[in-house]
Amino acid sequence: MRNAEILEEIVKRRLLYWPSSEIYGGVSGFYDYGPLAVQLRRNIIDKWRRTFVTPYQDLIIEVETPIIMPELVFKASGHLDHFTDYVVTCTKCGRKYRADHLVEEELAKKGIKISTEGLSTPELQRLIEEYRIVCPACGGPLGHVERFNLLFKTTIGPYSENVGYLRPETAQGIFVAFPRLAEYVGRRHPFGVAQIGRVARNEISPRGGLVRLREFTQMEIELFFDPQNPKCPYFSDVENLEVPIVPEEFVAKGRTEPLYLTAKQIVERGYANEWMAFFMALATKFLKELGVPVERQKFLGKLPHERAHYSAKSYDQMVLTERFGWIEVSGHAYRTDYDLSGHSKYSGQELVLERRLPTPREVEVARLYPNPVAIREKYGEKTGEVIKALKENENMVLEAFRTGRQEVVLGQYVITRDMVFIKIEKRKTDIEKFVPHVVEPSFGLDRILYVVLEHAVAIENGRVYLRLPPDIAPVAVCILPIVKRADYVEIGRRLMRRLGDEGFTVIYEDEGTIGSRYAYCDEIGTPLAVTIDEKTPVDETVTIRDRDTKRQVRIKLEKVPTFVAMVKRGMTFQDVAETLGAHPV
Amino acid sequence: MRNAEILEEIVKRRLLYWPSSEIYGGVSGFYDYGPLAVQLRRNIIDKWRRTFVTPYQDLIIEVETPIIMPELVFKASGHLDHFTDYVVTCTKCGRKYRADHLVEEELAKKGIKISTEGLSTPELQRLIEEYRIVCPACGGPLGHVERFNLLFKTTIGPYSENVGYLRPETAQGIFVAFPRLAEYVGRRHPFGVAQIGRVARNEISPRGGLVRLREFTQMEIELFFDPQNPKCPYFSDVENLEVPIVPEEFVAKGRTEPLYLTAKQIVERGYANEWMAFFMALATKFLKELGVPVERQKFLGKLPHERAHYSAKSYDQMVLTERFGWIEVSGHAYRTDYDLSGHSKYSGQELVLERRLPTPREVEVARLYPNPVAIREKYGEKTGEVIKALKENENMVLEAFRTGRQEVVLGQYVITRDMVFIKIEKRKTDIEKFVPHVVEPSFGLDRILYVVLEHAVAIENGRVYLRLPPDIAPVAVCILPIVKRADYVEIGRRLMRRLGDEGFTVIYEDEGTIGSRYAYCDEIGTPLAVTIDEKTPVDETVTIRDRDTKRQVRIKLEKVPTFVAMVKRGMTFQDVAETLGAHPV
Repeated sequence: MRNAEILEEIVKRRLLYWPSSEIYGGVSGFYDYGPLAVQLRRNIIDKWRRTFVTPYQDLIIEVETPIIMPELVFKASGHLDHFTDYVVTCTKCGRKYRADHLVEEELAKKGIKISTEGLSTPELQRLIEEYRIVCPACGGPLGHVERFNLLFKTTIGPYSENVGYLRPETAQGIFVAFPRLAEYVGRRHPFGVAQIGRVARNEISPRGGLVRLREFTQMEIELFFDPQNPKCPYFSDVENLEVPIVPEEFVAKGRTEPLYLTAKQIVERGYANEWMAFFMALATKFLKELGVPVERQKFLGKLPHERAHYSAKSYDQMVLTERFGWIEVSGHAYRTDYDLSGHSKYSGQELVLERRLPTPREVEVARLYPNPVAIREKYGEKTGEVIKALKENENMVLEAFRTGRQEVVLGQYVITRDMVFIKIEKRKTDIEKFVPHVVEPSFGLDRILYVVLEHAVAIENGRVYLRLPPDIAPVAVCILPIVKRADYVEIGRRLMRRLGDEGFTVIYEDEGTIGSRYAYCDEIGTPLAVTIDEKTPVDETVTIRDRDTKRQVRIKLEKVPTFVAMVKRGMTFQDVAETLGAHPV
Repeated sequence: MRNAEILEEIVKRRLLYWPSSEIYGGVSGFYDYGPLAVQLRRNIIDKWRRTFVTPYQDLIIEVETPIIMPELVFKASGHLDHFTDYVVTCTKCGRKYRADHLVEEELAKKGIKISTEGLSTPELQRLIEEYRIVCPACGGPLGHVERFNLLFKTTIGPYSENVGYLRPETAQGIFVAFPRLAEYVGRRHPFGVAQIGRVARNEISPRGGLVRLREFTQMEIELFFDPQNPKCPYFSDVENLEVPIVPEEFVAKGRTEPLYLTAKQIVERGYANEWMAFFMALATKFLKELGVPVERQKFLGKLPHERAHYSAKSYDQMVLTERFGWIEVSGHAYRTDYDLSGHSKYSGQELVLERRLPTPREVEVARLYPNPVAIREKYGEKTGEVIKALKENENMVLEAFRTGRQEVVLGQYVITRDMVFIKIEKRKTDIEKFVPHVVEPSFGLDRILYVVLEHAVAIENGRVYLRLPPDIAPVAVCILPIVKRADYVEIGRRLMRRLGDEGFTVIYEDEGTIGSRYAYCDEIGTPLAVTIDEKTPVDETVTIRDRDTKRQVRIKLEKVPTFVAMVKRGMTFQDVAETLGAHPV
């Protein structure tokens, strides 16, 4: 627990995050992020986009949809029925517990280790009765195990019957906007849609810091493809990347150690299709570049009863932490056509793309023809307009009459069955409609932030620092006049302003010993520290210190912004120093 | 309406935004943002940070807090009591209307123009009766005017009494975290805290596209300062910038035309303090750089009855649009100590900073001394522990007894009045506590997006394009092979990838005529278009076209990323072309 404890200290001292509404006693499951964490989060998001979106922007687009969505969305998505946890209430003191967690914890106290994942209400009830589990707070008897829906509920507008919910995943905003998004890409496929945003899940009794939050940030992609062609055109980018994977069949046998397979092998062995393997390989690389070695990652196959209701195949990307053991940082689900079909059913809209058939085939098509005589009888000189309206709404009118409706309203006209002829015609076509399938990689920003921080903790001869990759470090550079002398201060503040104008996050500090200020820069993971000393006013040079090696070089003041930019872009301190002609100190 | 109509067409054709949950008929007040708007929003946020935060990062920090907050927060902030609109219900059909809007609209139909801003319930009721206003939908009689709270309500966790609300402004997250934020800056002042995030307001019947949303994004700063010293250390940055302002006293006289004053004059004439004037000047510059000329902006002073409940002085930054007339894009409020005092009262926490007095003064301080005899009588050998607990909680215990409490619970110990002595002591101090005052600039991202788009519409000889500033344009560059030839395609796609890797948003398109593709690039405001032609495979050169002048130059392929970067950073096409040695075509 060494690193996790050191991190806890740093989090407190440097105010990376703290419980929200703390002055009111806090509300569990909600955290505020301080200035350093805001910047770290922004940088992780930026890196995620540069890993998953920007390189593939001809295929993957972005969208931003609201957090509040109307009830029908979650009826269609299955969340109203399936997105539940088990709750059990003490009949004496009224305290409520998440039933599966309570059972696990109470049995653990008795020395019994079991997993409650995927158990049903009666199974949990039976365990509570069998092991005589009581309220851990007051010892009172527990009531019946019940299902508790995790959606935050609200009302939209002044009518109390207009129920809305906060989205529990950004994904639904994407599915519901499918017609527009498909139109944007010209109905070409495959295509993916990314969304980054807040989501909310009304956890029963969240504990565990950033790992179980009631409000958190997701970074998701819904990748729409033709199930007859799950090829990823960018697969060659990743095919030789190594992915630590525990396939479902191994999980079923109780195995937890991963195989180290390339993305290509994963596809060849049938553990995932190209799109899933593509995202899993990128996710491995992403976490690795954030400072989590591949040996501390694994993709755990989920057994059918462990999967979300929409998923036909799932891998959880797990990272080994000191504090929480293995935790999921991203989920990779094969959602099939579950969501689009659900929304299609509830909205009455066709949510499809089209594929070209290798050979044309004959299909029967219903066609609608107006009956001008019947129309004129009722609408007289408006007949032309009615016919126009019929042509424009052919599919809708056809569908209505075929499903047994007696009349259809088109604007101001009521169309009765006798006003149209419906003919079934045969024609050749090489176009076929299909409901696209979906592969979804879904990342939890808050958990990633935690694992990145824990893995960054470095201890060397008593010196503690965060070895954050320079591209995500919250502060790019600290500026430290060696002593607080007027001319040093002026130079330092001018440099701060200059770097700020170029968009860098900078800390300027002229109080305290230089040693304590270096320690501060180290502790928040700042890759570079510039010191202004007696030489600076004379020859316009400063020293730059490397966080990891404590090495210092001397360089012209004017080259500092370039130095910082190059380190942030991933060049080593050594290489930058050489490139810019810096002198060792 | 020319530009607004053209914009509407572009919005529809290029899918910039559309009603959310459209397949379910939409929900008013909610919009989805398509790929181009997501990028435009991101760029506007980035520019806002570079205008208001990064240059002043020694004073202004950032925070990120949840959208859901507990009930007490909004009790303390005054939102539960004051954040309301008037609603009136038709007694016949049950339809609900926002009463003030209904009165204005119905009177307008009768040719009467009035402003209902700041009217009370009885005043609105009287107008409805006086003018016999009825339900515009069914003609039924209207019921009583009632107040409707605009907070979205929900429940946190499984206990139904744990009420929470979605924040209607990001500000409350900042106020509630004040102790942590003050600690972060070492209790130095002035300091500011910025937050960018989603907020929600349950509008009664929102209409007007992006201008009245139920869920939207704010960019806010709460600037905490000593009311005895409202000096802004960066004021010299802005003092000569021109700000179009209609001071309150002019508004009271019905004047609507702005004075054009410098920030310095605004302070000298007492229209605002330095901090308000500082942010108003930056806001003018910000909108101007986004493409809204100063002549189409004004800061409108708000009369007392028009201000939000927390504000002692307010200016709304208004922008003149074709479609909606003058609309508010940012609010500048002097919130005084309203919020911190409210939260202090409801939380029992001191929310203060300290100032140094010019000369020390004598103050009376209550001090607490344990009475070991009385403590030992009750707690025996635990006396030492009790005394330690008393020392640690001195202020809390003092406060409790001074407000008449009979006993105080400290962990497992109950402290009665006889266990302590309270002495009033005199001492000299040059430190004085104070509740900081707050100046708040608050920007609505969604409205800014709209005004930026409307002002970007340019029509020249029948050519329509968006003259978006290059730093915020959604797409940095379009890559267009002149025809779809294998080698052109390969070069084009390689360039797309290269630019993507450097973080640029790029569109690659090889279908359609070159003219129609240029038109597409223009219509979405892309500043540059690269074409690959017969010379490219031969000498590795491409042409780059300037959106605004349609001028083209020829340049080495390898210099394209630098060209794009320079234009995005604000250099003119002409200057970049010369700097990089491009040849006119």
